[in-house]
Amino acid sequence: MNKKLNRRDFLKTAAFAGTALAFNPQFAFSRNIATPTRKERLSIGVIGVGMRGRHLMNLASREENVVITAICDVSQSAIDLAQGILEKGGHKKAVAYTGSDYAYRDLLNRKDIDGVIIAANWDWHVPMTIDAMRAKKYVGLEVPAAMTMEDCWKLVEVYEETHTNVMFLENCCYDRECMAILQMLRDGMFGIPMHATCGYRHSAWGSEKWLKPVNTTTKIEHFVKYSALRNADQYPTHGIGPVANWFNINRGNRFLYLTSTATKPQAINEFARQHNNPNANYKFKQGDVVTTVIKTIKDETIVVNYDNYLPRPYSRDYSLQGTNGIWSGLYLGRGIYFEGKSPKDKWEKEKEYDAYMEKYDHPLWKDFYAKAQNAGHGGIDYFTIKEYIRSVRESAYPPIDIYDAVTWSSIIPLSEASLAKGSTPEFFPDFTKERWKTRKPMFGL
Amino acid sequence: MNKKLNRRDFLKTAAFAGTALAFNPQFAFSRNIATPTRKERLSIGVIGVGMRGRHLMNLASREENVVITAICDVSQSAIDLAQGILEKGGHKKAVAYTGSDYAYRDLLNRKDIDGVIIAANWDWHVPMTIDAMRAKKYVGLEVPAAMTMEDCWKLVEVYEETHTNVMFLENCCYDRECMAILQMLRDGMFGIPMHATCGYRHSAWGSEKWLKPVNTTTKIEHFVKYSALRNADQYPTHGIGPVANWFNINRGNRFLYLTSTATKPQAINEFARQHNNPNANYKFKQGDVVTTVIKTIKDETIVVNYDNYLPRPYSRDYSLQGTNGIWSGLYLGRGIYFEGKSPKDKWEKEKEYDAYMEKYDHPLWKDFYAKAQNAGHGGIDYFTIKEYIRSVRESAYPPIDIYDAVTWSSIIPLSEASLAKGSTPEFFPDFTKERWKTRKPMFGL
Repeated sequence: MNKKLNRRDFLKTAAFAGTALAFNPQFAFSRNIATPTRKERLSIGVIGVGMRGRHLMNLASREENVVITAICDVSQSAIDLAQGILEKGGHKKAVAYTGSDYAYRDLLNRKDIDGVIIAANWDWHVPMTIDAMRAKKYVGLEVPAAMTMEDCWKLVEVYEETHTNVMFLENCCYDRECMAILQMLRDGMFGIPMHATCGYRHSAWGSEKWLKPVNTTTKIEHFVKYSALRNADQYPTHGIGPVANWFNINRGNRFLYLTSTATKPQAINEFARQHNNPNANYKFKQGDVVTTVIKTIKDETIVVNYDNYLPRPYSRDYSLQGTNGIWSGLYLGRGIYFEGKSPKDKWEKEKEYDAYMEKYDHPLWKDFYAKAQNAGHGGIDYFTIKEYIRSVRESAYPPIDIYDAVTWSSIIPLSEASLAKGSTPEFFPDFTKERWKTRKPMFGL
Repeated sequence: MNKKLNRRDFLKTAAFAGTALAFNPQFAFSRNIATPTRKERLSIGVIGVGMRGRHLMNLASREENVVITAICDVSQSAIDLAQGILEKGGHKKAVAYTGSDYAYRDLLNRKDIDGVIIAANWDWHVPMTIDAMRAKKYVGLEVPAAMTMEDCWKLVEVYEETHTNVMFLENCCYDRECMAILQMLRDGMFGIPMHATCGYRHSAWGSEKWLKPVNTTTKIEHFVKYSALRNADQYPTHGIGPVANWFNINRGNRFLYLTSTATKPQAINEFARQHNNPNANYKFKQGDVVTTVIKTIKDETIVVNYDNYLPRPYSRDYSLQGTNGIWSGLYLGRGIYFEGKSPKDKWEKEKEYDAYMEKYDHPLWKDFYAKAQNAGHGGIDYFTIKEYIRSVRESAYPPIDIYDAVTWSSIIPLSEASLAKGSTPEFFPDFTKERWKTRKPMFGL
């Protein structure tokens, strides 16, 4: 890591945010300052070792001096697969907890665990995180954090009661181009940021799961279940995470309100119909495409797209527009334009686009590119887990915290409310209780 | 024109719309049926011969057996330039009307004029169109039609009182790819249409007009004036026109409501500030980016972007998504994908994209490509005027009518109301008074 660059960027950002650089206890725990509590050897538990949990466990196990001490899952076969991965990696088997929904509490009761990664089914994120905070384990929480406003507040309350750190494992924050755009923004390249788009457009068309009988009470499957139970942006955090970092949300800025508008539900029925499956007539609540527009308190706007059902190529729809330029990149069409630098009103050519991305490549990526490429998800999971492990090791405040987790996740219940009432504006609660006014940007610094 | 193809497409569409093909008096005047009133020689007047009006006049004058009989403008120099164009084209000078705001009424009083093209300043579109309808001149009306809900209704009322045809000259309806997409949609390629995007993102950053003293009472300039006077999607029709055709709006479908959300006004002030101009502190009302989301009565959704102030490359942001495919093309990134035909979850390559566009190229374009290329605006103006002249000649019902004009233009006052109230849903009036239920698609058939 290039310490000078980090420091310089940080100073620049503090100036950019228009705030004086004052002492902030959070920064006593920032990455470059070893603290008295720094642990050389870390003991990590993983709750939920399905496909996603095993992947995160595997990444954590590869970090230096990290031992996966314990794992937990209701499925014995998931546990067996996880143990196989550990053994294949040259590690000892973990102690396994299974046999009941609350076996995870036995894992949390262990004295030798420093942090737990929670990657269980959506329905379990809140109770497990609450129990883990109370057990004083540094939590790495998979997305989404919570799916109701009540649960969002519960997470905040227990955090403020326990002060146990929670890092929200929103891997898309570590997207290479999104981080480069963050660097450009902090360098003033975009001028005053005004408008952004993002989304999660990951087609599940063709999945076998649409052809199985719908189970609305299961706690081991969430995607079909919640398509049946509600109409919402079910999965907003991959899109909004990087954008929230661009706009310093909860750190000098905050989301004010949103409106959501959905198409009818059609894709799942249509897919089932094409397969002569009885789900052709099931009344799913979920609209195929949900368009959410967020207004910030600083009068910027953000479009969040949710589009997981219709057939289409993948996209997270990122774009950013300011008074001095626009980026619309990453998926279909890679466009960047800076007034006064680019040919008037023309997108830069591929070569110049790449040159900007290279120039503003974040040090995390610049230094660790080769390792990240082998770690899956374009390396974003690698950096997410690396940052989590670093934070646990240093007892550092997480770069993506519980307030980010609940603010981003609250788009689920807020969009649901807006859709239910015919696209009414729904206001974000201020989970930070006015601390957004003084909290400083941290991510990527 | 390939009559067989038109007929076949029409039958297909009628089936697609799920309606029986019943006798409809509108089709007695459709393009391929000469009517008793067919005029070989046409006499056309042009009201407003600024840059835009002169361009449309020039195109009309090149159509066979069309004489530009009279022109009108408050500016003598505009009239001189228009006469110069006519002379250069080998035509006689037109009779010119000028000298007062209402000189256009003298033009309308002429008995020898079959149709008038209205291309004056925005503020004059409604009174001129009303007077022209009452004078029984077939109107070709430049965009936008009206800017208040009251004026939208006035246009409808006078139309229903006079039954004088008005063709709304929304040139972007004739966009080549948008017409090809319409053909694909009618052929069932997209399955059930679900979601579309469109917009008008035409940067006026850098224009000298931002540096002049703001005049909010002028009737010869509208862009700066209305940026000062209101916050709205000021110019929705270029975006929404083709999309309304895709979704059969006013013809089996209708817009239900919209929500609009705007950024703060920043670009004009910022540009003025960079030029040490006093407008740096002028309180413009217009937000830099306005995002409008429309819901149709058939539960489709349409995102309409208005983004004319920040520096950026041009786009009208067209995309269309259905249960069987998605197109996201034309500007940055040309993407098309059809489930079962395209490589799974991958955009087609350039070559296949072009092949689809060629296969579904609309007969209008296929037959008249060379001529259109010389006519400016990528040929869309050429087709708009050609269709207008054909409609006047045949006394045919216009392919884009007064109901389309006011429905599309009503996005201006509705977005203004939504923005003023904090992104509330605002409902579209039904200008057709329930006739949308039985009116048949016409455009491009």
